[in-house]
Amino acid sequence: MTFELFYWPGLQGRGEFVRLAFEATGTPYVEIVQGKRPGQGMDGLLHTMDNPACPDPPYAPPFLRVGDELIGQTANILAYLGPRLGLVGESPRARRWVNQLQLTLADLVAEVHDGHHPIASRLYYSNQRAEARKRTADLIDYRLPKFFGYFERVLANNPHAGGWLSEGAMSYADLSLFQVIEGLHYAFPRAMTGFAKAFPRSQAVHDAVACQPRIAAYLKSSRRIAFNTTGIFRHYKELDRASPF
Amino acid sequence: MTFELFYWPGLQGRGEFVRLAFEATGTPYVEIVQGKRPGQGMDGLLHTMDNPACPDPPYAPPFLRVGDELIGQTANILAYLGPRLGLVGESPRARRWVNQLQLTLADLVAEVHDGHHPIASRLYYSNQRAEARKRTADLIDYRLPKFFGYFERVLANNPHAGGWLSEGAMSYADLSLFQVIEGLHYAFPRAMTGFAKAFPRSQAVHDAVACQPRIAAYLKSSRRIAFNTTGIFRHYKELDRASPF
Repeated sequence: MTFELFYWPGLQGRGEFVRLAFEATGTPYVEIVQGKRPGQGMDGLLHTMDNPACPDPPYAPPFLRVGDELIGQTANILAYLGPRLGLVGESPRARRWVNQLQLTLADLVAEVHDGHHPIASRLYYSNQRAEARKRTADLIDYRLPKFFGYFERVLANNPHAGGWLSEGAMSYADLSLFQVIEGLHYAFPRAMTGFAKAFPRSQAVHDAVACQPRIAAYLKSSRRIAFNTTGIFRHYKELDRASPF
Repeated sequence: MTFELFYWPGLQGRGEFVRLAFEATGTPYVEIVQGKRPGQGMDGLLHTMDNPACPDPPYAPPFLRVGDELIGQTANILAYLGPRLGLVGESPRARRWVNQLQLTLADLVAEVHDGHHPIASRLYYSNQRAEARKRTADLIDYRLPKFFGYFERVLANNPHAGGWLSEGAMSYADLSLFQVIEGLHYAFPRAMTGFAKAFPRSQAVHDAVACQPRIAAYLKSSRRIAFNTTGIFRHYKELDRASPF
């Protein structure tokens, strides 16, 4: 079975958390939006998402199609893929814990997005620049330290060796933590200067993920879309600032 | 086994989505913050959440304690409780679908919260009133119609009779949809005037939940905290406005 991934073209966005799960495990997947056949491309994405007869429509991309089932919401997709791709522990308790971590990462991702879009996601950044400056200041000064202080504590308290978030092996939450840190380094190089020193366990997860041979190959490939100012993590020089960490 | 719920005192907040699952099914639960014994009350909540040795700390309330396990993140708590309380279908597919719906409702809840706190959740509303007016206008004019248009479509396309979101029975996502609509009626009475007519299937879920005998009894009880301006759904007259629906 080949997994079909539906996501917007030209940006990493929330689709990237799903791509990383596929790429880390060498799992074949099709990016529907890049296909040329009927039912693929941008039309294929929109028609599938907006099909008026669909009994389980997704609210928004990313979503997967597996047989006749559409699976939406990033954390829900990863909870589905995790056991199938070996990216989460076997026990129900481990699965709940990794899902919980993923949802906390999803909250952080939404806050990063709202840093540049605090008023309305449908409007351009340039229409909400003054508000974005205020919200991003709060993100950098208060929210990032709080979130990463939390992840440091999780990593420090994991009784298993290996330095991962859950048990002794890389889970999809580690892949997502990598992606968030990578995105923050792109968006806020000045704020992130002292990150590795302030949050060494989180940075170590980032580095360990980046060193996985399949991930390293993916990051160098043309499949990895470059960060840009249409995604969640955006570099606007005027929003970057010195951080308390 | 009695479930122990940890949530802030004095507001419904995200804890209410968990309370509704317990109340709808007559499941005994303890509100730790209201207890007087050692390990209960506000101190009990904070010490449990901030315990430096905890291997699975929650990022924030609400969280459950079940035996020696802490389960955090509202949607994760409900995914755990759903099968145990009979609030989700039996099949893995139904469980994924209800989890997906719950995550979409969680996104909406976060947007409602950010309506009155678009800049910083740690600051008072009065420090971000001008920005709140802009963000709430966008919420009422664009986001609510988009979200509820989606839920109407889900309800219309459910092949099972009964009018519920998933299959032919009430799930925890229906309870959450009730709570969101109830909260929006409190926060935005003017904007919500035409809601029932514009989104009749969603309003019917609300009404059907409200009529469940256990829920009706709960809503009249002292256990139901009144909506107020410390929760997610807040009534600030200056933010309410005529809506396009």
